[in-house]
Amino acid sequence: MSASIHHIGRDDAPSLEPLMTLVANDMNAVNSVILDRMQSDIPLIPELAGHLIAGGGKRMRPMLTLAAAKLIGYEGERHFKLAAAVEFIHTATLLHDDVVDGSDLRRGKTAANLIFGNPATVLVGDFLFSRSFELMVEDGSLKVLKILSSASAVIAEGEVNQLTAQRKIDTSEDRYLDIIGSKTAALFAAASRISAVVAERDEETELALDAYGRNIGIAFQLVDDAIDYSSDSETMGKDAGDDFREGKVTLPVILAYARGSDEERQFWKDAIIGHKTSGDDLAHATSLLQRTGAIEDTISRARHYGQRAIDALGTFPAGKAKAALIEAVEFAISRAY
Amino acid sequence: MSASIHHIGRDDAPSLEPLMTLVANDMNAVNSVILDRMQSDIPLIPELAGHLIAGGGKRMRPMLTLAAAKLIGYEGERHFKLAAAVEFIHTATLLHDDVVDGSDLRRGKTAANLIFGNPATVLVGDFLFSRSFELMVEDGSLKVLKILSSASAVIAEGEVNQLTAQRKIDTSEDRYLDIIGSKTAALFAAASRISAVVAERDEETELALDAYGRNIGIAFQLVDDAIDYSSDSETMGKDAGDDFREGKVTLPVILAYARGSDEERQFWKDAIIGHKTSGDDLAHATSLLQRTGAIEDTISRARHYGQRAIDALGTFPAGKAKAALIEAVEFAISRAY
Repeated sequence: MSASIHHIGRDDAPSLEPLMTLVANDMNAVNSVILDRMQSDIPLIPELAGHLIAGGGKRMRPMLTLAAAKLIGYEGERHFKLAAAVEFIHTATLLHDDVVDGSDLRRGKTAANLIFGNPATVLVGDFLFSRSFELMVEDGSLKVLKILSSASAVIAEGEVNQLTAQRKIDTSEDRYLDIIGSKTAALFAAASRISAVVAERDEETELALDAYGRNIGIAFQLVDDAIDYSSDSETMGKDAGDDFREGKVTLPVILAYARGSDEERQFWKDAIIGHKTSGDDLAHATSLLQRTGAIEDTISRARHYGQRAIDALGTFPAGKAKAALIEAVEFAISRAY
Repeated sequence: MSASIHHIGRDDAPSLEPLMTLVANDMNAVNSVILDRMQSDIPLIPELAGHLIAGGGKRMRPMLTLAAAKLIGYEGERHFKLAAAVEFIHTATLLHDDVVDGSDLRRGKTAANLIFGNPATVLVGDFLFSRSFELMVEDGSLKVLKILSSASAVIAEGEVNQLTAQRKIDTSEDRYLDIIGSKTAALFAAASRISAVVAERDEETELALDAYGRNIGIAFQLVDDAIDYSSDSETMGKDAGDDFREGKVTLPVILAYARGSDEERQFWKDAIIGHKTSGDDLAHATSLLQRTGAIEDTISRARHYGQRAIDALGTFPAGKAKAALIEAVEFAISRAY
């Protein structure tokens, strides 16, 4: 059936709306769990956690859990608590990232650590992380616990890997893919997969959802890394050029370095070790990225993983859930334009 | 039987030796798990974790898990992995504490964050924390997972509570006890309790071991807080007066403030908000603590909790394990002298 073939294209203006509409009711239930379980007798905990959680964010990961459940026809409610657990893990890593990166903006607001300090930000991250495991334990599936504890360890490994690659211009595309596969895609994969576990579907279903999540996660990260050089802080909700100033070697830089002249490579070497941090330097970097096609080809790579995400859904029945998950991939890619 | 009555005394020189001897073989197995599971393909992870783990520490918490198992006659090996998980949770909190406190010394060595930086220290803490849950999931007891995930959340709450009490001279003894009950005693309690869970003993046994762990944990923390004012950095493995300089309101300070003259109270107010940080100030603080009996009475309070720990063991059969656990309490108190 030709209807089951979907190629990524840019003709339309893809949106997250179908996905958000699909899971709107269920997301209310998840948000209730989130708000309820971030409470504590220690007032600073909900205050600090609320700064980030109430501050928005797309709730992509819990949306994937909820949409995957719709896709496979799961009728229960166990995944509400687990989707909240996934969001808590994500929130904990964001709080710790704020301390690690020292960025000024997160989701368009001042980063938590700049308001509450590094100590409180680290500790509230730890609290949310512990709380996420409490939620999983309440659900009681050892299989889910295994998937999410493993994902958490992989995320931390990916973050440390990224840290040790920082300011190293000779980082390879393979290593970069390892890093984003761990720090970003592992939680997307787990978020999608766990619905198949609570619905007690077969392993092929689990693995297909895992592959969807992993690949859309990589696509999201690649596009994020591209728009860090090509957008403004208002659109992004964080400062443009953060990666550049922090000496993060992302795929756009890896491609521009590989394709550049000797002179350009010297510029990149200087920039990544932190000797080129002005606005003019960032503008020069962006022009090099454009001229070498590094931005465009980063998006091409994202499109490749997006296509794999869509194809991982191939055997699932057509319907609103599948259409929404496919359009979410289109949306991930389209943010670059 | 008079043999079952044991009062804390100072006549002998109590030591941890009996406890260490009791669990020496089992601790080798636990250490193997620890060394094996702190590995990662990312070299910085074992390097940073190893700095703290290989750096020693008494391994008090896993020792309690192992000794509790001996006390109740558990013959299996499941608790080896769980004792390692407990030590990983503890290590993760120490790494995050280093970032939170900004102390220079830990276990007599330079604090990890001063060597490896705050970012790596936070992230490796996250890794060890995730790894601890992976170990618990491998064991597969939801009850153990519940006990340790709950303890982890309580620890984080206690740390945040301590942070918000910092530099507040009006912190009450009750609030202080809440803080140390959470940040320190909760993990001691969980460490002792989980052996009864894997051994499938009744709830009374679980609760008795929990009470032993909680009370020896409080005793340890009280004595730690006392010797922070009365020892030297070589003995402690951390800098003397750290609490004083960081404006931590511990029980010695709470007692000295309550018992002091108006002038002395003004000194404490100034000191705790950070206006008295010199060596002379610390010497003056120490003399006030001695004169008001604050140090001595902090140890008296510790002795009270120590006695409760010992009495919690009342119904367990006499033998090497019980004797070692009792002497561990004596040791905890005796460190003050």
